[in-house]
Amino acid sequence: MMPRPPATGDQLPALADGEGTSVVGHNVPRVDAIEKVTGTAQYVADVRLPGMLEGRILRSPYPHARIRSVDTSRAERLPGVIAVVTGEDTPKRKWGSFQKDQYPLAVDKVRYVGDEVAAVAAIDEATAEEALSLIDVDYELLPAVFDPEEAMRPNAPLIHDDKPGNLALHFVVVRGDPDAKLLASDLVLEDTFETRIQWHAAMETIGSLAQFSPSGKLTVYMNTATIFMARTRIAWALDLNMSDVRVIQTAVGGAFGGKSCDDNNAMICSLLAMKAGRPVRIINSREDEFLSTRPRPAMKLWVRMGFMNDGTITAKDLKVIADNGAYSAKGAAVAGVTALRHDTMYLYKDVRSELYVVHTNKIGTGAFRGFGNPEAAFAIDQMIDMAAERLGLDPVEMTLKNTIGPNHTSIHGNRVLSCELKECVRQAADMVGWGEHQALCHSERSEESVTGTDASPEARHDKKGIGLASSVHVSGKRHFGDYDGSSMVVNVNLDGKVHIWSGEGETGPGANTVLAQIAAEELGVPFADVSVSVADTDTTTYAQGSYASRSAYIAGNAVRDAAQKVRAEILELAAGMLEALPEDLAIEEGVISVKGNPAGKTVTVGDVAMSALYRRGGKPISALGIWDPPSEVQDEHRYGNESGSYNFCSHAVELAVDPQTGQFKLLNYVAASDAGTVIFPMGAEGQNEGGAAQGLGYAFTEEMHFDDGRPLGPNFGDYKLPCIADMPPFRQVFVPSYEPTGPLGAKGIGEIGLDPTAPAIANAIYDAVGVRIKTLPITPEKVLWALQEKERTGHDGSARIVTREQLLADRRPGPTSGGSH
Amino acid sequence: MMPRPPATGDQLPALADGEGTSVVGHNVPRVDAIEKVTGTAQYVADVRLPGMLEGRILRSPYPHARIRSVDTSRAERLPGVIAVVTGEDTPKRKWGSFQKDQYPLAVDKVRYVGDEVAAVAAIDEATAEEALSLIDVDYELLPAVFDPEEAMRPNAPLIHDDKPGNLALHFVVVRGDPDAKLLASDLVLEDTFETRIQWHAAMETIGSLAQFSPSGKLTVYMNTATIFMARTRIAWALDLNMSDVRVIQTAVGGAFGGKSCDDNNAMICSLLAMKAGRPVRIINSREDEFLSTRPRPAMKLWVRMGFMNDGTITAKDLKVIADNGAYSAKGAAVAGVTALRHDTMYLYKDVRSELYVVHTNKIGTGAFRGFGNPEAAFAIDQMIDMAAERLGLDPVEMTLKNTIGPNHTSIHGNRVLSCELKECVRQAADMVGWGEHQALCHSERSEESVTGTDASPEARHDKKGIGLASSVHVSGKRHFGDYDGSSMVVNVNLDGKVHIWSGEGETGPGANTVLAQIAAEELGVPFADVSVSVADTDTTTYAQGSYASRSAYIAGNAVRDAAQKVRAEILELAAGMLEALPEDLAIEEGVISVKGNPAGKTVTVGDVAMSALYRRGGKPISALGIWDPPSEVQDEHRYGNESGSYNFCSHAVELAVDPQTGQFKLLNYVAASDAGTVIFPMGAEGQNEGGAAQGLGYAFTEEMHFDDGRPLGPNFGDYKLPCIADMPPFRQVFVPSYEPTGPLGAKGIGEIGLDPTAPAIANAIYDAVGVRIKTLPITPEKVLWALQEKERTGHDGSARIVTREQLLADRRPGPTSGGSH
Repeated sequence: MMPRPPATGDQLPALADGEGTSVVGHNVPRVDAIEKVTGTAQYVADVRLPGMLEGRILRSPYPHARIRSVDTSRAERLPGVIAVVTGEDTPKRKWGSFQKDQYPLAVDKVRYVGDEVAAVAAIDEATAEEALSLIDVDYELLPAVFDPEEAMRPNAPLIHDDKPGNLALHFVVVRGDPDAKLLASDLVLEDTFETRIQWHAAMETIGSLAQFSPSGKLTVYMNTATIFMARTRIAWALDLNMSDVRVIQTAVGGAFGGKSCDDNNAMICSLLAMKAGRPVRIINSREDEFLSTRPRPAMKLWVRMGFMNDGTITAKDLKVIADNGAYSAKGAAVAGVTALRHDTMYLYKDVRSELYVVHTNKIGTGAFRGFGNPEAAFAIDQMIDMAAERLGLDPVEMTLKNTIGPNHTSIHGNRVLSCELKECVRQAADMVGWGEHQALCHSERSEESVTGTDASPEARHDKKGIGLASSVHVSGKRHFGDYDGSSMVVNVNLDGKVHIWSGEGETGPGANTVLAQIAAEELGVPFADVSVSVADTDTTTYAQGSYASRSAYIAGNAVRDAAQKVRAEILELAAGMLEALPEDLAIEEGVISVKGNPAGKTVTVGDVAMSALYRRGGKPISALGIWDPPSEVQDEHRYGNESGSYNFCSHAVELAVDPQTGQFKLLNYVAASDAGTVIFPMGAEGQNEGGAAQGLGYAFTEEMHFDDGRPLGPNFGDYKLPCIADMPPFRQVFVPSYEPTGPLGAKGIGEIGLDPTAPAIANAIYDAVGVRIKTLPITPEKVLWALQEKERTGHDGSARIVTREQLLADRRPGPTSGGSH
Repeated sequence: MMPRPPATGDQLPALADGEGTSVVGHNVPRVDAIEKVTGTAQYVADVRLPGMLEGRILRSPYPHARIRSVDTSRAERLPGVIAVVTGEDTPKRKWGSFQKDQYPLAVDKVRYVGDEVAAVAAIDEATAEEALSLIDVDYELLPAVFDPEEAMRPNAPLIHDDKPGNLALHFVVVRGDPDAKLLASDLVLEDTFETRIQWHAAMETIGSLAQFSPSGKLTVYMNTATIFMARTRIAWALDLNMSDVRVIQTAVGGAFGGKSCDDNNAMICSLLAMKAGRPVRIINSREDEFLSTRPRPAMKLWVRMGFMNDGTITAKDLKVIADNGAYSAKGAAVAGVTALRHDTMYLYKDVRSELYVVHTNKIGTGAFRGFGNPEAAFAIDQMIDMAAERLGLDPVEMTLKNTIGPNHTSIHGNRVLSCELKECVRQAADMVGWGEHQALCHSERSEESVTGTDASPEARHDKKGIGLASSVHVSGKRHFGDYDGSSMVVNVNLDGKVHIWSGEGETGPGANTVLAQIAAEELGVPFADVSVSVADTDTTTYAQGSYASRSAYIAGNAVRDAAQKVRAEILELAAGMLEALPEDLAIEEGVISVKGNPAGKTVTVGDVAMSALYRRGGKPISALGIWDPPSEVQDEHRYGNESGSYNFCSHAVELAVDPQTGQFKLLNYVAASDAGTVIFPMGAEGQNEGGAAQGLGYAFTEEMHFDDGRPLGPNFGDYKLPCIADMPPFRQVFVPSYEPTGPLGAKGIGEIGLDPTAPAIANAIYDAVGVRIKTLPITPEKVLWALQEKERTGHDGSARIVTREQLLADRRPGPTSGGSH
């Protein structure tokens, strides 16, 4: 979506270990490029099955109500209606990725405006829509609650009977003795931050096309990022055997965490197909998408941090209240990351993190690129900026003092091997012109503080500021069943072309291109000779899919394992044909020769494959590759190395603020990333550009207002996404880094690009006009109000200093070695 | 198609080695049963792709003509026409399964009425048909030849420039010294037999649906029996990389050898899709099917055989002239089998076989169930019957004297291990009531020979006769690249269900059911828990496909290999969970327990699969099975063991002939087969019933007349198939047999069921009314004419006796150890 700045690729530094690679580290045409640019890629809406029906969903207009009855008889009588389903047609099994708390269709109660109540399959969409209007639902309205803090109060309406206090998750993790460390600090600051719900807003909405055969096999074409998880969930929710569910991934027009099958689209589509006996598809309208997917949860973060005068962070006390919405999806896991993950990048050892994930009568929440990290960064990286201000230190220097280096184990047990975070900070600062700007601005600001606001027309449009923020992200996260691995099969076809059977899937970022590059590199065949299968639970081996920035790192290692086994087979067979030892052979561009004898006899990989078929009784040159990262499921104290590797970045922005209006304009955006070896530069760059763009939306435009639980403006007219005109000039570098556990040194890059955007902007706003915006989104109105407030009261919104007395009063007993609810 | 006689299954003898099997040897619901009976199986005509066009083909109306020009401009201008292709759109590469002699679309010449000249893809069939009428082809007519013997003459029109004498194949194979053995015989008989072209006449015609992506990938949905061979041929003919062609098998409505991708349907369909840039399908009309597929070739067989007075066959001299038609397809290979294979079942050591496969300006010929064996049986088994008559022996006794037993190597090098042919002969004779009937008829006939025709009304309708014939068939045949193996992957899903990824495919007989049975048996899981993939060149490992009666035997061994590996994996993993040794465990109905401790702890295969995923880093319980039979490619003298095992049968019929009209009525049909262990009794029975029905069509109804090369009546109104009313009562047994190289003792059964039908009927006709019909089909007219001729001349049509003088005169020099052209 973002045009690639032409110079970026050239600026890419040499790969740490990529010298001598012929495919990895080079830009290649994506394996799906031609289909996508010619419009022939098959998205779910492009798939047609004979007799296919259109499905539409009836949603609750109330945030909380008991369903007294659903009468579908009028809808069923409408000509062209083939099937109508309600909660009564489901096995009434609750399902969910982390907590089983939602039905495919509402049973007894609806819990938010948008909750699915019934669905219709008809010969066309208009008929299906008309049928929805003929379904009579008798609701008994219940009191509703929309604010998580209110929802936790004793007399709040209870949304799930089995969740007292509307708590989906609560834990307190304590490492070391944060209270003591805070007491011993030179400076303790405290502040509260708020982040908002954010929808994925992928160009393509969620959709499914389901077909049910009389023999009991359900086939679902889905634009999901995680086909095997979708299979597990559909099978569970509909009480089918897992083997009787086949999920086939179509082309995916953007996922961003929203297409992880956490919503009911596929379940309802499948129910309709089973009842209709004909294929049914449900493609979300944009309104459906806002009313039914599982967006990023809104959070309130209270944080208290201690510092020494030299800038060392001593301790942190964090309380997060996350608005889980009506259903959990992955919202609780997201908030868990907010509470803990950011600590992985800092050296301090004493923290308390308390998390409340609370049900309200709003849409259920889930995974969104960044997965809790942007929320933490928004709070912590502003806290550090504010502390630097108080301590008279340079925020970059202060960041460098506290950030980790390689071979570090975090207080929560995350074992970081490769880490060039400090270099990221330095390079981002350099690229944005940190030194010069800070020097200039500081002198300007001191002047202002004496003379008041400079109202000269030039100055009005020239309040420039820069801000920097950093982040850490996992490359895969061990959640499910103590397994975070990948498996895939690499096969050499009889003409020497290589095919990868992968169930990991492609959601857009180029993951399949990365797999093809690794296979081509390991095998010594041309990149163009490698193809990657469609992800299909019936034809590919088990794979977790695309989430947690895991594809390049984990699937990359699996494909490498397979390719290395295949290479060994090829060389063994070629050795017989060339009368040489396997170890004396080289494969280059698909041609095998004896090393050091380029003029000698050669055979192609195709020759080997064809002869292998006949010489080995039909055994194909094919190998299964597997890889499970050296990570662990966190223990009951949320301690443990949740990922095999960690990626890092530092982003800096330059902006100009008009203090008369609060309007601001981004002038420059720079990013420095540590993603280990960059396998597919154009893809990695695109991830950061897209991440930044999405981060900008999160930071200053995307907001949904609710009226009594009803979302106002669930459409792109009201929910404002940044467009290309909002994108500032963007430059980025990848710092040289090599992850020892990664495939050819690589680690993840998919999500981190939006993690530090919002705090970098907030820090830059402060740098420009001296006010703190701590509630997302950062709008011109908020900037203007803050400037007016500052003028009126002298308060610039910065964190307040916590006194020793207050610290002693707040000192809490309780677990010192961790604990969770 | 044939209703199963209810008693047959019960009559099935106990399996030789099947005691204790729980799935193999038992009737199970076919894996595709529900889809087929509910009409939801996806045949090629059921597959729809968005934007799909209908393709139709323009065929030559002339048997032999030069194409001066093809003007497609008027057709291209017709609204709704998207693409028109001619030979100019092809890479002009000749292709063919054994001989590369055909273009996808005619280049320069047409060689038979039906030859493909151009094709159109249009928005609907009517438009495509109309467009065909707008294509102007300027032909220069050439002299044509339709009779193979004429075609071999020096001045005959040359059909292929590179085939002098219109010879596609000629060989002479001599083993031992047949001339000397004939001279030393007590009786030498000589006769000539003619067989006819036979179309497969599958209920479903051949069809393809092709889609070409802008990235160069061609996907073809085809009702082919051999997806990987189709891929190879399409790639060759269209000059594509093999990997850029994906062939997906749809449900197949009968193949019988005709759906082996020997015809141009898929190539033309693909060309249209490539040119149109949209999916195109071509489903043959019934007329297309008669004009373009590759039927069984017509043959003329001259045979001379020597016998001793005790019935021992001494030697055989055979000359076969096969009408190859315009293109070879597999016709030449079929005729090669006619020339040699039948010898595998007899003990004689001295034979000469000479074969001429000759091009004519008729439709090219190819594989048909039986693959040359029915033609040989039609000649040889009548010769034996006639010799028995001359020698005053019982034909059954004479057959038993000459047929082989187990552990026999034939004169052509075929190594037979299991062989219960003699028992088949005995049981078929018993079942048809041989002894009683022969005794009765002989007395009747002696009476007749004295009294002349008994014209009493009762007798007229009561000339009963019985006849018996036997056959041998391969179970797989080693042709292609010295490989006749199979490979497939067996995978245990996370819920313990078993999936077989097989590219062998299913054409109707139940091959996939057999694979599922073998896997279930080996793994100890319920049959219902096993599923089999669609055959798809992109998602299954290399497999030769369904032909040469190979599936149960070869694919069966491959799936068994895979299943055994998977079983070992399961037991290894279960051993850890049950704290026992793998060898102490049993798997029954998917539950693993310690042997001898049924009340102890158990785990299910599903438990093991789920835990394996997590305990082994994601390595699925999955194994590749391969198996290549112990056969060899025949040498230049056509010597060698072409198949890993051989199956046998003996069929007998009882019929009544009305000597006043020649009308006959089949009263009983019995079959005794040696197929080794019968894995899927209902399927094997169905194969024999269907084979017999198809054999009846070959024997007495199916015939196409040609007028100057133009087939008269290419439709089911004129080309008469036997229908259910023509099917006599049918009984069959499988004699106990165990093939040591087969999966659980099994070997092939798919084709042999029609091999001996025609000679059994011919022998029965003779037995009933004393005339020999040696030209297929055996019609009432021919019987009546033969009776009239016999009455007029005294000749009953039986083979003439060859005198010693004639033998001395005919004595030929030449190769005595074999030789081929």
